Amino acid sequence: MTWHATALTLFPEMFPGSLGLSLAGRALREGRWRLDTVQIRDFAVDKHRTVDDTPCGGGAGMVLRPDVVDAACEAALAQGPGRPLVYLTPRGRLLDQALVRELATGPGAVLVCGRYEGLDQRVIEARGMREVSVGDYVLSGGEPAALLMLDACVRLLPGVMGGVDSAEEESFSASEAPLLEYPHYTKPAEWLGRTVPEVLLSGHHAAVARWRREQAEAATRERRPDLWARREPQRIAAAGLASGHAGTTD
Amino acid sequence: MTWHATALTLFPEMFPGSLGLSLAGRALREGRWRLDTVQIRDFAVDKHRTVDDTPCGGGAGMVLRPDVVDAACEAALAQGPGRPLVYLTPRGRLLDQALVRELATGPGAVLVCGRYEGLDQRVIEARGMREVSVGDYVLSGGEPAALLMLDACVRLLPGVMGGVDSAEEESFSASEAPLLEYPHYTKPAEWLGRTVPEVLLSGHHAAVARWRREQAEAATRERRPDLWARREPQRIAAAGLASGHAGTTD
Repeated sequence: MTWHATALTLFPEMFPGSLGLSLAGRALREGRWRLDTVQIRDFAVDKHRTVDDTPCGGGAGMVLRPDVVDAACEAALAQGPGRPLVYLTPRGRLLDQALVRELATGPGAVLVCGRYEGLDQRVIEARGMREVSVGDYVLSGGEPAALLMLDACVRLLPGVMGGVDSAEEESFSASEAPLLEYPHYTKPAEWLGRTVPEVLLSGHHAAVARWRREQAEAATRERRPDLWARREPQRIAAAGLASGHAGTTD
Repeated sequence: MTWHATALTLFPEMFPGSLGLSLAGRALREGRWRLDTVQIRDFAVDKHRTVDDTPCGGGAGMVLRPDVVDAACEAALAQGPGRPLVYLTPRGRLLDQALVRELATGPGAVLVCGRYEGLDQRVIEARGMREVSVGDYVLSGGEPAALLMLDACVRLLPGVMGGVDSAEEESFSASEAPLLEYPHYTKPAEWLGRTVPEVLLSGHHAAVARWRREQAEAATRERRPDLWARREPQRIAAAGLASGHAGTTD
């Protein structure tokens, strides 16, 4: 079964966008994944093709109607049933690499892209949509978020990346509470008076691994105290388990 | 001065992508912002146009050479000096709406898009790049992240959004430790047996505002305990200040 994405959108011409190029684009042409779009406006029921209306209770902006979005979902699922519906919204749980992996190992996804103030809550509930946020910032619509999420999923599909190693070795791939990556260096060994750290040219694999680990930990502590704090309970639990285990075997 | 973005990339054809359509696209055509690309490969110095080399110290993947990227930065800044260089990388600080606002109110940005394992650390330091991550997931390159970040910035530029209200009223826009948005409802008042919450049809503005606030708080507590935890110290501090103030006036 080919991994199958369908974008529900008012701007189908935004797809495949950047996913039509580079490795994702080649994989799309080779049939390693499939991308369809459903134009939400095609499911409007009046002659003006209205998809939205004013928010109940007042306020700025417009809200996408539940009946129109529901009919668009029906059409998307008809193209490939059994796929999860993912609604890209700042109200969602944060996208992380674990969710990317979960989606990439499934049959695909229907990505619901909101515009204006978003979807009527009733269609989110009726369709059991998974509400997912790509980060704490406001976008013009769900489309840039959907493209981002597809990029993250597609690179994990079999045969898309050249080296399996680089797909999985990077930041956020390995564990529940990950470290940021260590800094990278390449040739030339000296550039504008700046040299590559000596240990990286030493040929001592253990020393290189230790240095990279220290750099990754330092970067995480400094730049992402939130990630670092999530590691601490795990480290304490792991230390406790280790000593407990030692106790039972002694 | 027109807000001016330049993307440094190996895939200039990924731009403007979704930003060429909808409100951002119209604003681009109207000259409300400007978007250029610089092809990093044009600054390679050998006849094979090599931009990368193996990582010092070993490991999978390739690293973009500091000399090549530095020359590309020089060219980008020549098109518009004084703009910050933003390197999209999972090692960066997390993008949030405060940084979006800061960039949107500046002269623009040079967005450095990595591929492979990323940039040589020396050019990041030599150029004083701001390292920014859009979220804790792995992408095929910096381009989808750059498009996302530009989308977030461009919608805040003067004259891009129709209603100023909707640009600023949404999640993450208002305060340092924001709430998620309340759920939205529109017509029809009843759909498949699901009704709009009665309070939203009551016409009592204060009751609507109170309900929305409660819904926003409940969603934040349940879905984003990390955001909720960041609010708590502020609430306690605010309560302390309020009672202190009451004490001095009594």
